[in-house]
Amino acid sequence: MRRAVCLLSGGLDSTTCLAWARAQGFACYALSFDYGQRHRVELEAARRVAEALGVEAHQTAKIDLRMFGGSALTADIDVPKHGSAGDGIPVTYVPARNTVFLSFALAWAEVLEASDIVIGVNAIDYSGYPDCRPEFIEAYERMANLATKSGVEGRTHIKVHTPLITLSKADIVRLAVSFNVDLRLTHSCYDPDAAGRSCGSCDSCSLRLKGFADAGLTDPLEYTG
Amino acid sequence: MRRAVCLLSGGLDSTTCLAWARAQGFACYALSFDYGQRHRVELEAARRVAEALGVEAHQTAKIDLRMFGGSALTADIDVPKHGSAGDGIPVTYVPARNTVFLSFALAWAEVLEASDIVIGVNAIDYSGYPDCRPEFIEAYERMANLATKSGVEGRTHIKVHTPLITLSKADIVRLAVSFNVDLRLTHSCYDPDAAGRSCGSCDSCSLRLKGFADAGLTDPLEYTG
Repeated sequence: MRRAVCLLSGGLDSTTCLAWARAQGFACYALSFDYGQRHRVELEAARRVAEALGVEAHQTAKIDLRMFGGSALTADIDVPKHGSAGDGIPVTYVPARNTVFLSFALAWAEVLEASDIVIGVNAIDYSGYPDCRPEFIEAYERMANLATKSGVEGRTHIKVHTPLITLSKADIVRLAVSFNVDLRLTHSCYDPDAAGRSCGSCDSCSLRLKGFADAGLTDPLEYTG
Repeated sequence: MRRAVCLLSGGLDSTTCLAWARAQGFACYALSFDYGQRHRVELEAARRVAEALGVEAHQTAKIDLRMFGGSALTADIDVPKHGSAGDGIPVTYVPARNTVFLSFALAWAEVLEASDIVIGVNAIDYSGYPDCRPEFIEAYERMANLATKSGVEGRTHIKVHTPLITLSKADIVRLAVSFNVDLRLTHSCYDPDAAGRSCGSCDSCSLRLKGFADAGLTDPLEYTG
């Protein structure tokens, strides 16, 4: 079986990607990040999802992006509510986050001799982050093939898979359901309460709820707002 | 003053780069990594160098590349001695190390609104690492400009400076001396003894000693072998 490193936050998108990778026949190595995010409950969701979907291994890399500040997800800046998406790049953007995450995935892929990396970026129903766009992913992939021992020696060609990149949030919900993913295991909220319940009004909750509504389905998560 | 994020290991090359960046007029933000390296004494060298060269700030990011294994510098594999350089990519190569390091530098640069990153890679007297080559750096820079808020919004163009990339080790020694860098502060050895003294026979020591010899200068460091 070919091996793939799958970035897994524990949210709807990355969970759907992991299910996609398994359906493609990959032996999956899930990689999560403890990066000082306020919504740390997603790490628990990632653990549940990785176990439920039967990965070969699940690692959580601890990296402190708070040391640089600059984002509402890691610094002491309020998470915006009720529709800030669409007004340029929002304050929830974490500087270079996907670049950092993919670089760790690349390191693990190289050790595993895997040539496949899977990331749940999406350029349709998304929050306007620069590192979610196809042109970023293409440039990353090109760089990755020049960065690695296996790429330079011509043994492998690193491929960064983005199975969700052209899907709407409703399409993603439908895809997850088609893989029989238990979406109660997932977590998407940027600003959960102390019990880990989702707020229902941050960008991430809003996009998720709209996706379920557009797909004509009900989100099994409990919301406080 | 323009700001630059300067990767600083505390070795000869990155120290010379930092001195170069200061001479170019940059306000320098030095970034080091505690990545589980066996030669942790270099972190102390980085601290000394950052202080001596008067940086605006010095951060050490703690990242655990040991979780992936795969290198003599982080895993339980012997560091080769006496001339393994030149026989393909050596076991001291850390998977995707420069990709990971540059990604953290990019994150900090974005928060600082800096468009300049300085890295001491060298493609002449080097150990055959893929992520030290000009084509890797060019691909990284292209990717970085698609990854970031400032790049996408057209406010800045990220430039990855590699002032040493075409220099011989002797040239680097001469350049450091021209900047009056106190090279006793630096550390290059991959396999120091418990007191932090350099072995004199690993690839890194061998390249350094040859550089001093070719430049007709004496290395001020103390060697055990």
